[in-house]
Amino acid sequence: MSHFADRLSEAIRARNSRVCVGLDPVQAHLPRALAAAAEQGPDEAAQAVGAFCCAILDAVAPYAAVVKPQAAYFEALGPAGYRVLWDVMAYAHGLGLPVILDAKRSDIGSTAAAYAAAYFDPPAGLVGPDALTVNPYLGSDGVLPFIEAGGPARGVYVLVKTSNPSSGELQDLRTATPAGPRVIYRQLGERVAQWGEASVGDYGYSSVGAVVGATYPEQLAELRAWLPTVPFLVPGYGAQGGAAADVAGAFDSRGLGAVVNSSRGIIYAGAQEPYASSDDPDAFAAAAAEAARIMRDDINSVLGLLPPPSG
Amino acid sequence: MSHFADRLSEAIRARNSRVCVGLDPVQAHLPRALAAAAEQGPDEAAQAVGAFCCAILDAVAPYAAVVKPQAAYFEALGPAGYRVLWDVMAYAHGLGLPVILDAKRSDIGSTAAAYAAAYFDPPAGLVGPDALTVNPYLGSDGVLPFIEAGGPARGVYVLVKTSNPSSGELQDLRTATPAGPRVIYRQLGERVAQWGEASVGDYGYSSVGAVVGATYPEQLAELRAWLPTVPFLVPGYGAQGGAAADVAGAFDSRGLGAVVNSSRGIIYAGAQEPYASSDDPDAFAAAAAEAARIMRDDINSVLGLLPPPSG
Repeated sequence: MSHFADRLSEAIRARNSRVCVGLDPVQAHLPRALAAAAEQGPDEAAQAVGAFCCAILDAVAPYAAVVKPQAAYFEALGPAGYRVLWDVMAYAHGLGLPVILDAKRSDIGSTAAAYAAAYFDPPAGLVGPDALTVNPYLGSDGVLPFIEAGGPARGVYVLVKTSNPSSGELQDLRTATPAGPRVIYRQLGERVAQWGEASVGDYGYSSVGAVVGATYPEQLAELRAWLPTVPFLVPGYGAQGGAAADVAGAFDSRGLGAVVNSSRGIIYAGAQEPYASSDDPDAFAAAAAEAARIMRDDINSVLGLLPPPSG
Repeated sequence: MSHFADRLSEAIRARNSRVCVGLDPVQAHLPRALAAAAEQGPDEAAQAVGAFCCAILDAVAPYAAVVKPQAAYFEALGPAGYRVLWDVMAYAHGLGLPVILDAKRSDIGSTAAAYAAAYFDPPAGLVGPDALTVNPYLGSDGVLPFIEAGGPARGVYVLVKTSNPSSGELQDLRTATPAGPRVIYRQLGERVAQWGEASVGDYGYSSVGAVVGATYPEQLAELRAWLPTVPFLVPGYGAQGGAAADVAGAFDSRGLGAVVNSSRGIIYAGAQEPYASSDDPDAFAAAAAEAARIMRDDINSVLGLLPPPSG
């Protein structure tokens, strides 16, 4: 299926899960066995982080609709870490998991096109992500090159209302528009809908999505009503404070239209008991699987089960 | 000298140049000999791009105050290209050229800290850039982690008024503030000044700078007047249309306070005659040197010579 949003809707239905598992691997939080290996040097640290991520992917695959590696944590490990990011994306693809690369890239036209090529048309031998997050501060000519390069086959999630405490400093400012005063996140959201107009798929969603934080449930529900064709990526569940009831507004009446991300709450679940004091070297992965399952069920308990997949 | 803005002001005076040479290497535009090598595969392409950039750095070093690799073009070459980005930064440091890495990173607090660590505190054996460009769409908790990690020793250039045609879609919106209606780029510029208040150095500039495009000369002069302690990185000269007269407003009465970037106009000067048909395989580097010298002199002809360095 060559349409990103349709592919993601099918993955959500097939796994009966709206969960996105975020991979934010930090060397200091690796499980003991991998932490020891990571101390040998930068290449070993990157390899250990890669092994950690692949084990997490194996564990959460039954419970996740999609996974979201965060580029920053791989770049923090230097060039070896950046290579491992690509290994991890390939591994996820091998498990049949769609990948949203959270890189929040942005630049002017020609450079935005270079970023788009980097991720949607990478050099031979590399498998790029299914979707990428993009920052809209530069306006449409900083975003359209991603949409043009990706086509409907790849998703572009534009930051609209982010989950962090200071997101309102800029995003909540209100300015005059022909339709009356509008907050910036709404103006941007409406532009995102326009950018995606040509790529609305069979499920009614375009491949141009919006990032809207679980930490702002009211805005999430408003944006869902204003932007019925825009799929949402909803970070902020769990460690950042969002709960299942907070994200309910992100979904349509069918229970589709969004995926909800948790990173630390899943991948570091092994730091909690009973896993933390377990002798099993794979306890961290079992903990992540259990945390992903609980999150899936928590969201499903509010939203109800999904219709079975069409296939 | 551990203060970024002071270090940059000294470099400007020592070289009598306000020129920033942007490294936006594209495989398709490599000179013939390197293009042939690049066709062997992704690793060879990255190596050829690295050789190209190092030859450009050698050539422009006498005429440039600072250099600015653009991360997108290295990422477009895959993991091998990302490694070459670090090699190129190390090579520039070896030539005594300060490096601004143009990566326009942005994310929420903890992830912004991971990006800051990636570039300001990289793994052993890597030399990070002197400064980094940062996107402010997420508000202060997406920017402060960079400023805190970099301290005054590293520069953080925040996007304020970018050089691209659509920059005004968001950046020029006007909103109410306690001081009256203000365009967003001014509000952000004033916040950049506040973020840098604690790090104003001997030259009167802080290590927290602003990106302001040469393509908007009026806004450039306004912002210089509003933000006397904020150093500017001014892209858009040359290929994007900005001329020396357009950038004059970016500087203070001493002729300090900004560096002006040109990328394609310098690094691809060899595509113009008489260099393009030269048999000399190093003609591309000679062309870049000449283009950088002409740009330096063009700007100096408008601004006048600088006072000699203090050292």
